[in-house]
Amino acid sequence: MKKNLILGQSGGPTAVINCSLYGAVQEGFRKEEIDKVYGMVNGIEGFLRGDYLDFQEMKDNGSVEKLLYTPGAFLGSCRYKLPEDLSDPVYDEILKKLEEMSIGYFCYIGGNDSMDTVSKLSRYAAGTDTSIRFIGIPKTVDNDLVLTDHTPGFGSAARYVAYTVKEIAYDLSVYNAKSVTIVEIMGRHAGWLTAASRLARETENGNPYLIYLPEAAFDVETFVAQVEKALEVCPNLLVCVSEGIKDKDGVFICEYDSKAGVDSFGHKMLTGCGKYLERLIQDRLKIKARSVELNVCQRCSATMMSKTDQTEAASAGAFGVNAAVNGETGKMAAFVRKEGGVYEMECTLQDVNLICNEEKTVPTDWIIKDGTDVSEEFVAYALPLIQGKVEVPENENGLADFVKRAGK
Amino acid sequence: MKKNLILGQSGGPTAVINCSLYGAVQEGFRKEEIDKVYGMVNGIEGFLRGDYLDFQEMKDNGSVEKLLYTPGAFLGSCRYKLPEDLSDPVYDEILKKLEEMSIGYFCYIGGNDSMDTVSKLSRYAAGTDTSIRFIGIPKTVDNDLVLTDHTPGFGSAARYVAYTVKEIAYDLSVYNAKSVTIVEIMGRHAGWLTAASRLARETENGNPYLIYLPEAAFDVETFVAQVEKALEVCPNLLVCVSEGIKDKDGVFICEYDSKAGVDSFGHKMLTGCGKYLERLIQDRLKIKARSVELNVCQRCSATMMSKTDQTEAASAGAFGVNAAVNGETGKMAAFVRKEGGVYEMECTLQDVNLICNEEKTVPTDWIIKDGTDVSEEFVAYALPLIQGKVEVPENENGLADFVKRAGK
Repeated sequence: MKKNLILGQSGGPTAVINCSLYGAVQEGFRKEEIDKVYGMVNGIEGFLRGDYLDFQEMKDNGSVEKLLYTPGAFLGSCRYKLPEDLSDPVYDEILKKLEEMSIGYFCYIGGNDSMDTVSKLSRYAAGTDTSIRFIGIPKTVDNDLVLTDHTPGFGSAARYVAYTVKEIAYDLSVYNAKSVTIVEIMGRHAGWLTAASRLARETENGNPYLIYLPEAAFDVETFVAQVEKALEVCPNLLVCVSEGIKDKDGVFICEYDSKAGVDSFGHKMLTGCGKYLERLIQDRLKIKARSVELNVCQRCSATMMSKTDQTEAASAGAFGVNAAVNGETGKMAAFVRKEGGVYEMECTLQDVNLICNEEKTVPTDWIIKDGTDVSEEFVAYALPLIQGKVEVPENENGLADFVKRAGK
Repeated sequence: MKKNLILGQSGGPTAVINCSLYGAVQEGFRKEEIDKVYGMVNGIEGFLRGDYLDFQEMKDNGSVEKLLYTPGAFLGSCRYKLPEDLSDPVYDEILKKLEEMSIGYFCYIGGNDSMDTVSKLSRYAAGTDTSIRFIGIPKTVDNDLVLTDHTPGFGSAARYVAYTVKEIAYDLSVYNAKSVTIVEIMGRHAGWLTAASRLARETENGNPYLIYLPEAAFDVETFVAQVEKALEVCPNLLVCVSEGIKDKDGVFICEYDSKAGVDSFGHKMLTGCGKYLERLIQDRLKIKARSVELNVCQRCSATMMSKTDQTEAASAGAFGVNAAVNGETGKMAAFVRKEGGVYEMECTLQDVNLICNEEKTVPTDWIIKDGTDVSEEFVAYALPLIQGKVEVPENENGLADFVKRAGK
């Protein structure tokens, strides 16, 4: 008997989270075992409110393809953590709702927290007589999921970082006077995305000359000395820092300012670490300093999407649906890099329970030069992931022709 | 007798300032009247130090074409204001140096201050027996030069703003809870670039729902009320503000914070107005608010370059060189939009003395809805300028294949 497929998106969006949705939707329509393809609106949280849609309409009007280059999470997202206690009535409620809709396959696209949802639902389901299969499809710009070579979303964000940092490096080099530009890049605990700025460097003493990841303890005095020294060889200095850099006691550098003063509203002043370091350099070295926070653009730039990432994200979506149809549950679609000189990636399955509460950080031996740079191993790892340009179709106004949910 | 051409770049870079250089260099090589094509390194300031280059080498190795998509100012830039007093010896010094190099044509690519340089040099030259002609070629993302329909650089920056704001609008709409995202856009005195965010709006109540330019007085209390009201129809609200918004007394909103406190270094706290408004909204409406400063990316994104802007910038460069060869001096290459339905632009010459100390702001009657939006007239004006995608060639690493000065 045919069963229905339901898909959901959860956590912060990436440039390709809708590519995984695309892959999953198309595979859902291809599979003989699958009747209808549904999408939860705003993840499991919206589903609990009864909010979902049927992809048939999009299939009929030919707009499914637009998911391949639309940023944001098409289905809407949520940050909803299911209770640790599997005897909580919410589990029964979810399962009942799924059974009512004749769901046989449940695929959830997201990061760590979403894999936690898949883990809990699959574990709860194992104690019932349901045949619903629960599969996780990875996404996160942070690239911090374990048991996979990398995660969909990272390659596009890394391409954005590499291209943008390179453009900023050209922009900042126009004046003769010494200057320091600090680029703050996403990644609270894992420095993968900040490390990607290394790909923008063209020559040995080129920019970004200094790169700081959260994996290495950050010392403010050492930083000032490193900047001063770097300015001797690189007078228009570009420094890339992860938003999550912290000192040896684990205190985030971005919290240093809050010790100092309050803002106009009497609240602790919270600025990014880039802004803090900008003012530190101005104060200590008396030279022009500026900071640029790449912010959400890193994760939502369709025009900067990596073709490799786009293709792989769609494959992961399709692979996840296939796995569910093949009887797998409690698993995540993961990537294995094939051995050999030419980059090639293969999908595989990993136990979602081993993934959901772990965090993959940049290997310590890839962080070099007293924590101011990343190694050639990182370059070899990351470079294939940012390859390829994506053609984003334009609408009649010459802007990107994205797709929204009906009624949105 | 053949004379040489010298080119210079000055002020902040734009995405297409090197396209104007390209157009000027190529025209220089094409003209029979011109022998060598030189470039001042770091503008008039570097030239005074004797720093210049010969474009022959780039012509020979075929890298001139790369100027068409390389951001930053290839020749280097400066912020150097010539003395008001034309009897200052620096004028004689410059003229002597130019004569020594057999310069017949001097073209300077830049904004307001650069046109001031052209104005002063041409006026000084008029009192001597030199035959050197001085021509200005416009560039500025701010679009604030008078006597021209628009300036090269604006179209690409506007395309960046329109595309990026649209991507951010998709990104911020993923959650169900009400939220406010404030995007801070360049433009200290003129709101052209902030107005370009209007191009990202897809539907009547779509984002960006509120747009504030520096041309209209900004009132913090009115703003809070407008945001609160807007949230009723647009629960994931995107607000675009110009960095230069100021209150009715002319005080910049970004200075409000400095009244409040000092940073960790005992200095006045200076943050952007976006950060200020973010905290204002959090404080007053108790909802999630975030700010994004587009920063220098607006002016250096090669991948976001507008094809129209690229083409026009190159034309302006070529037109400027041609004008000099035709005996013009003290003029700026300017754009006239042809009448009629189809967008078409023509180059013309304007008196640089009438341009250099003026500033073109957004017309008051284009600012509508109590200063929270711009009109359809603006859309009709700006939309043609952002049209067309530019193909940026990639190097062996899959990154943009830009060009740098030899030795840079």
